[in-house]
Amino acid sequence: MTTYVVGHQNPDTDSICAAIAYANLKQQLGAKAEAIRAGKINAETEFILDKFEVQAPKLVTELAKGDEVILVDHNEKSQAIAGIKEAEVKEIIDHHRIGDIETGNPIYFRNEPVGSTATVVTKLYQENGVEINEQMAGLLLSAILSDTVIFRSPTCTKADKEIANRLAKQLGVDIQKYGKNMFKAGSVVNQLEPKELITNDYKEYELAGETIGVGQIEIMDVNEVNDIKEDLLVGIEELVAERGYKFLVLIVTDILAEGSLLLFPADAKEIIADAFDVDTKGTEVYLDGVLSRKKQVIPVLSDYLTT
Amino acid sequence: MTTYVVGHQNPDTDSICAAIAYANLKQQLGAKAEAIRAGKINAETEFILDKFEVQAPKLVTELAKGDEVILVDHNEKSQAIAGIKEAEVKEIIDHHRIGDIETGNPIYFRNEPVGSTATVVTKLYQENGVEINEQMAGLLLSAILSDTVIFRSPTCTKADKEIANRLAKQLGVDIQKYGKNMFKAGSVVNQLEPKELITNDYKEYELAGETIGVGQIEIMDVNEVNDIKEDLLVGIEELVAERGYKFLVLIVTDILAEGSLLLFPADAKEIIADAFDVDTKGTEVYLDGVLSRKKQVIPVLSDYLTT
Repeated sequence: MTTYVVGHQNPDTDSICAAIAYANLKQQLGAKAEAIRAGKINAETEFILDKFEVQAPKLVTELAKGDEVILVDHNEKSQAIAGIKEAEVKEIIDHHRIGDIETGNPIYFRNEPVGSTATVVTKLYQENGVEINEQMAGLLLSAILSDTVIFRSPTCTKADKEIANRLAKQLGVDIQKYGKNMFKAGSVVNQLEPKELITNDYKEYELAGETIGVGQIEIMDVNEVNDIKEDLLVGIEELVAERGYKFLVLIVTDILAEGSLLLFPADAKEIIADAFDVDTKGTEVYLDGVLSRKKQVIPVLSDYLTT
Repeated sequence: MTTYVVGHQNPDTDSICAAIAYANLKQQLGAKAEAIRAGKINAETEFILDKFEVQAPKLVTELAKGDEVILVDHNEKSQAIAGIKEAEVKEIIDHHRIGDIETGNPIYFRNEPVGSTATVVTKLYQENGVEINEQMAGLLLSAILSDTVIFRSPTCTKADKEIANRLAKQLGVDIQKYGKNMFKAGSVVNQLEPKELITNDYKEYELAGETIGVGQIEIMDVNEVNDIKEDLLVGIEELVAERGYKFLVLIVTDILAEGSLLLFPADAKEIIADAFDVDTKGTEVYLDGVLSRKKQVIPVLSDYLTT
């Protein structure tokens, strides 16, 4: 009987890559194991699978009674693939809080407080003395970088960094460069049209009797919008006209650099320059250290416009 | 803050030894950890602690709010030390089914389907590159032998055997000999008076209008009763007289050898010899392969006496 290896619903890169790599380890140890997925592959994961030429796991929408399954990257029923209650959980490899999965028999349960499941899976290859091939090394490295936001997440540990560095060395990959490319591939910038991007996380404010619109996108590298900046500005102008705004600001937040590029219509230039006390390049300005719309952008605009 | 390391309520050897050895590992890794126990030390564990000159963990009857605790050898609230709901579970090292402990944060949870928690703890020393001193090696070996009944339990795995053999080699200990001594020290034979032993697991039967009594004790080595055999026979004669039995049989079952020594009054000699079709030495007979009172002793006596 084949044992399925599966991540959580709405799988992210760690869930998909850990499932594939752990199924591979089990196979190399002589077990019949197959990675499956409980949902759609996201753009970031697709980029990774393409790059390392690994097929996406088979989509399984519901487990059948008696199916044997290894859970990776989750250990709560509510997050698990449909039919989990009918299946037999054989192992769990995870890095989250301990949830509500119970078993009738003793099983292998390996949960570690590290940044990604892939870190635990890599340790298991090592502990079992199984060599990690380039494809699996690529998936494991990618999953660590994804879940730790290239080591920047507060959940990232020394173990994540050491293991990622070792995998990167094996592959001859530059972690910062590859990580940024990976996040770029998965970025919302590549998924949405300009107007959708502007209004994806969007709020209107009434200030001094007029309406302004403020959208925000959070990305790994503000340069991701370079190619579409003109289109974004066109979208901003159109929305201002359509909706009768005083102006509209799009906050493009660079999570890694911890700052934001503001994009706005040309005729809002003086307001922005005066309000934030900065020089602008006409339709944009980069504000170092500004990350929060609510705490760092709206109060400044409100102060300027209402006093 | 010191983190407690604790086994289950009514601790057995694995719970005590795994707690001590894992606390020692944590200390060597630089953490503040202390083994505690949730209940009385049993005779077997006492023998082990004496032999390897290790102090028993402090008895703690209830955890206080905010205590930090590492659970070993269990992962179910119902088996845990009182006050567990008020404490913060920091880690779990176990070898049982996955139970109902949930945590708010990700923790280290290492559960393996092996014969003892001590096996997992020994692996953790190795994975962390920490040398196991003689005292800890003694406790870990003892716990593996105890929980696996010297490798005879169906829960025993290759990993348990390999690790126990390595520890025994380090200590220069003969596993079979030491294991038997250890079980002997913990045997019910050393805990109870002869008459208590006879009637500890005891049943009366009405056969052909007369009453017989049949007691059973299960021990690791039938030779454990050699020194008290005379006292047991005196007790048997007394009980027969007091209770007006036709006779009384004490079944001393040797779990390792998988056979039973029957002890009985001299005047039951012919009945036993005829019923089981064996020669007897007057007041005893060893029956190879006989383990069950219900299935292998009572039917034979019943057949003989009622037909």
